[in-house]
Amino acid sequence: MSASLTIALDAMGGDNAPAIVVKGADFARRRFPDIRFHMFGDEKRILPLMKRRKRLSEITQITHTDNVISNEMKVSVALRKGRQSSMQLAINAVRDGEAAGVVSAGNTGALMAMAKLALRTLPGIDRPAIAAIFPTMRGESVMLDLGANVECAAENLVQFAIMGDVFARTVLGTVEPSCGLLNVGSEEMKGHAEIQQASAYLKDMSDTINFYGFVEGDDIAAGTTDVIVSDGFTGNIALKTTEGTARLIKEFLGDAFRSSMSSRLGYVFARRGLRKMRDRIDPRRYNGAMFLGLTGIAVKSHGGTDAFGFANAIGVAVDMAANGFNEKITDGLKKFGAVEPETREAAAS
Amino acid sequence: MSASLTIALDAMGGDNAPAIVVKGADFARRRFPDIRFHMFGDEKRILPLMKRRKRLSEITQITHTDNVISNEMKVSVALRKGRQSSMQLAINAVRDGEAAGVVSAGNTGALMAMAKLALRTLPGIDRPAIAAIFPTMRGESVMLDLGANVECAAENLVQFAIMGDVFARTVLGTVEPSCGLLNVGSEEMKGHAEIQQASAYLKDMSDTINFYGFVEGDDIAAGTTDVIVSDGFTGNIALKTTEGTARLIKEFLGDAFRSSMSSRLGYVFARRGLRKMRDRIDPRRYNGAMFLGLTGIAVKSHGGTDAFGFANAIGVAVDMAANGFNEKITDGLKKFGAVEPETREAAAS
Repeated sequence: MSASLTIALDAMGGDNAPAIVVKGADFARRRFPDIRFHMFGDEKRILPLMKRRKRLSEITQITHTDNVISNEMKVSVALRKGRQSSMQLAINAVRDGEAAGVVSAGNTGALMAMAKLALRTLPGIDRPAIAAIFPTMRGESVMLDLGANVECAAENLVQFAIMGDVFARTVLGTVEPSCGLLNVGSEEMKGHAEIQQASAYLKDMSDTINFYGFVEGDDIAAGTTDVIVSDGFTGNIALKTTEGTARLIKEFLGDAFRSSMSSRLGYVFARRGLRKMRDRIDPRRYNGAMFLGLTGIAVKSHGGTDAFGFANAIGVAVDMAANGFNEKITDGLKKFGAVEPETREAAAS
Repeated sequence: MSASLTIALDAMGGDNAPAIVVKGADFARRRFPDIRFHMFGDEKRILPLMKRRKRLSEITQITHTDNVISNEMKVSVALRKGRQSSMQLAINAVRDGEAAGVVSAGNTGALMAMAKLALRTLPGIDRPAIAAIFPTMRGESVMLDLGANVECAAENLVQFAIMGDVFARTVLGTVEPSCGLLNVGSEEMKGHAEIQQASAYLKDMSDTINFYGFVEGDDIAAGTTDVIVSDGFTGNIALKTTEGTARLIKEFLGDAFRSSMSSRLGYVFARRGLRKMRDRIDPRRYNGAMFLGLTGIAVKSHGGTDAFGFANAIGVAVDMAANGFNEKITDGLKKFGAVEPETREAAAS
């Protein structure tokens, strides 16, 4: 991380805000010694939490606001009534170049809408996407979109592929990341028109993007490709299905270890190994969904996370900022040139 | 099960056919003492497997054919060249009323297309759906469609809901099954137009169907509703994501138990409990995707299953046949009346 980098924090977003935000920031500053924070929220609630955190207080600026976006608030209401909200002000800090990125555990829809309006999309990107990192058999993959766009045109999917490619290179450190399009079968003729068209575009770009072809739902966890591209509807279902399945197995595993004295004893012996396993799929470790395609860095933390999880979301924002993620996407788009259909047709004629 | 019931088997479908088919049938006949089989396939390969299975031979009729549908075959080719295939002949046995249901572990697309053509859809059903049973925190749920229809109109989703409702009642034995529509959020305004429209239709049918509303990906494993309705694209992604996640966790769990001597010992003590857990989510136990909405019963076994899994797929076909599943769907459709948009409009005018 170069010199000092400021991250704007929506101190009031999330189920246990502002406590997890303050504590999470305190965790994060140990990992990133040069970090600085700008917190937005209710001073009366933030200041008492800062009292015993001398080091954190020294690197944190607090801007007070009473206005908070609730989880239940509709996006339209949030936009109208939340101009002075902790969420909006934190985003504005990025827009104004004062912070390198923003992290919020608040209302996803509101955060996306506000970030989109305040930060705008990067040139060449029509729609931003939500991305997250998934643990796989082969390491880690990034998947997008996870819910920003219920319906996507082929061009959107291609732009997601480019953003995912740059993300894998800059944040995951993957050399020549492979990219797959999420579909119901790997055969060429499967899936709907948008996916077919996106596949055709990506094949044409084979000298610059390592397009694997179609992947299926089980390829996500298998780690078949480093990047998985999907429309936001399907991606969101896949993400939440993964979470639900993991929770179910965890529950069943708990039942198994509680099922007899012998099993309880077995748990005691296997505990260290099991903890290591739990860490590998710990949702807190993978906390932090990135809004890609905006002119500023915005990371959404899970609303129910704890301080450890929130610190990881801050870590994602820092990684993206320190590695010049957005500059690299812009470079990537220039390189790919042929993203927008107009450009394609112009080139063909 | 009433008197004798014949199940037609595509002896040549699946990665390890005909061995798993013959062995699976032998397992199944122990569970269903009055069952009879009609196998279609290569006699030269089936007969040697029957040699030591005297009881099975007595209840099995074999019709020889050399024609086999491969997994790689395109649906159009399968339909054209497979008129005498083991798959097609097994389906025809159901069409001709000679068998109560058909089970195949072969090419899914070909099986669906052949079954649709030979068996046709039930009156009131525009498109058949693929359904499967999922283990959940609360027991078992049925989800459909899992891949027969990449795109679905609202009316299709409503028909799936009715079929799912009847399936939960007749096969799972659920009293008053609740039904959820898979979406990216539980808020009313979320999701695309078809889902919105389907939700409106289902709300209107509240006196006959127990519509819960929208459910998300993690609600599948949570067992929030007994029936989960989805278009075939999303449902297929959710199904395969579930499989992939379960496989990943199993792999990580194995690593955990192998990570130290202490963990290995822990495994030994916990083994019985862990086996019980494995049984609860054993994919072989949930083997057998049902093609719902056809005039005959057709069950698709996983291509890579073993004899135990294939026997369970046979079990699903027997359960559906013995419980008069199709008759009950037809009754259900009559009761719901208002399924087809024409009918709806006629009723309104």
